[in-house]
Amino acid sequence: MDEPSATQRPGEVVITLPAWAADAVDWTQPYPSDEAKMRLTVALSRLNVERETGGPFGAAVFELESGRLVGIGVNSVVRLNCSALHAEVMALMLAEQERHSFTLSAPGLPRHELVTSCEPCAMCLGATLWSGVKRLVCGATRDDAMRLGFDEGPVFAASYDYLQQAGIEVVREVCRDEARAVLEMYRSRSGPIYNP
Amino acid sequence: MDEPSATQRPGEVVITLPAWAADAVDWTQPYPSDEAKMRLTVALSRLNVERETGGPFGAAVFELESGRLVGIGVNSVVRLNCSALHAEVMALMLAEQERHSFTLSAPGLPRHELVTSCEPCAMCLGATLWSGVKRLVCGATRDDAMRLGFDEGPVFAASYDYLQQAGIEVVREVCRDEARAVLEMYRSRSGPIYNP
Repeated sequence: MDEPSATQRPGEVVITLPAWAADAVDWTQPYPSDEAKMRLTVALSRLNVERETGGPFGAAVFELESGRLVGIGVNSVVRLNCSALHAEVMALMLAEQERHSFTLSAPGLPRHELVTSCEPCAMCLGATLWSGVKRLVCGATRDDAMRLGFDEGPVFAASYDYLQQAGIEVVREVCRDEARAVLEMYRSRSGPIYNP
Repeated sequence: MDEPSATQRPGEVVITLPAWAADAVDWTQPYPSDEAKMRLTVALSRLNVERETGGPFGAAVFELESGRLVGIGVNSVVRLNCSALHAEVMALMLAEQERHSFTLSAPGLPRHELVTSCEPCAMCLGATLWSGVKRLVCGATRDDAMRLGFDEGPVFAASYDYLQQAGIEVVREVCRDEARAVLEMYRSRSGPIYNP
């Protein structure tokens, strides 16, 4: 860890990005393709490992049609002492905060998508459903993460069916090799596998 | 809503309990039984509806053996513009914060349990797994919530099997009638059903 946790008061949890994130992301340009969007999340996952701020996972929320970036997240479980702060949950929380809405499919909002460097665990798959995103784009696979020793929890084929029946398009294995390479890098550095 | 959201800065999410929570809970006495623990979470769910601070769900984390209360949560999705802030996620986040640990099963910590006024949705079931609690105690059932119009997401019998195989004891339908009565009260007041 190269930076302290946010100051916390009793009965309060403050969720912040690592300090390096402010300089790591271009918020001004649209991201025109699934590959461009995925490369951002993979870059976030790589920086999170290199800066030693968390596990090898990154995620981002975009406006689906414009490609505008709305929120980013990196795995922050250990940094912020919060087991729920997977990259996807953080990206969704920050995106909803930016939109001042508890759902990204509120009337008047453009459609949103969640792009994640690795297929979501059971918790994040549920969080995706509640967020109001209309599209889920994944890089590395559940098997890639589990081979690293990370548990993904009770996610089944029927879980993805449930998302699709709720109107969420699912796209998998976008830039999978690049995303998996960060998982491998994390393993080679013997990064902590929490909740093994 | 009878109170404002927490002040939020860009790139930051501040998670707080409703103001009434400080006076609603006795933190000094142990909670000696499943029923005593469940009655606290049902009381929280009821107050959350009566004070109009969120949906009809409450949760709490206890030390398993001593019955000491460690963290509480109420559904705060609408109040804090955050779809992930179900009662269970909030209780787990605040408990981990209190314990300065990303897992409630860290060496040196007593065993913990999550008590929730309603069976967890897909997201919260996953969050339970990652939190390190050793026991999950539920009040109202998934069917009770779905009859109200709340979606519970992709939770299957195999999802509970997964928790139990991970060493988490699951106890269901504790004070179910009392928990369900709050769901019915919420429906009778025509409270908002987000993510229907």
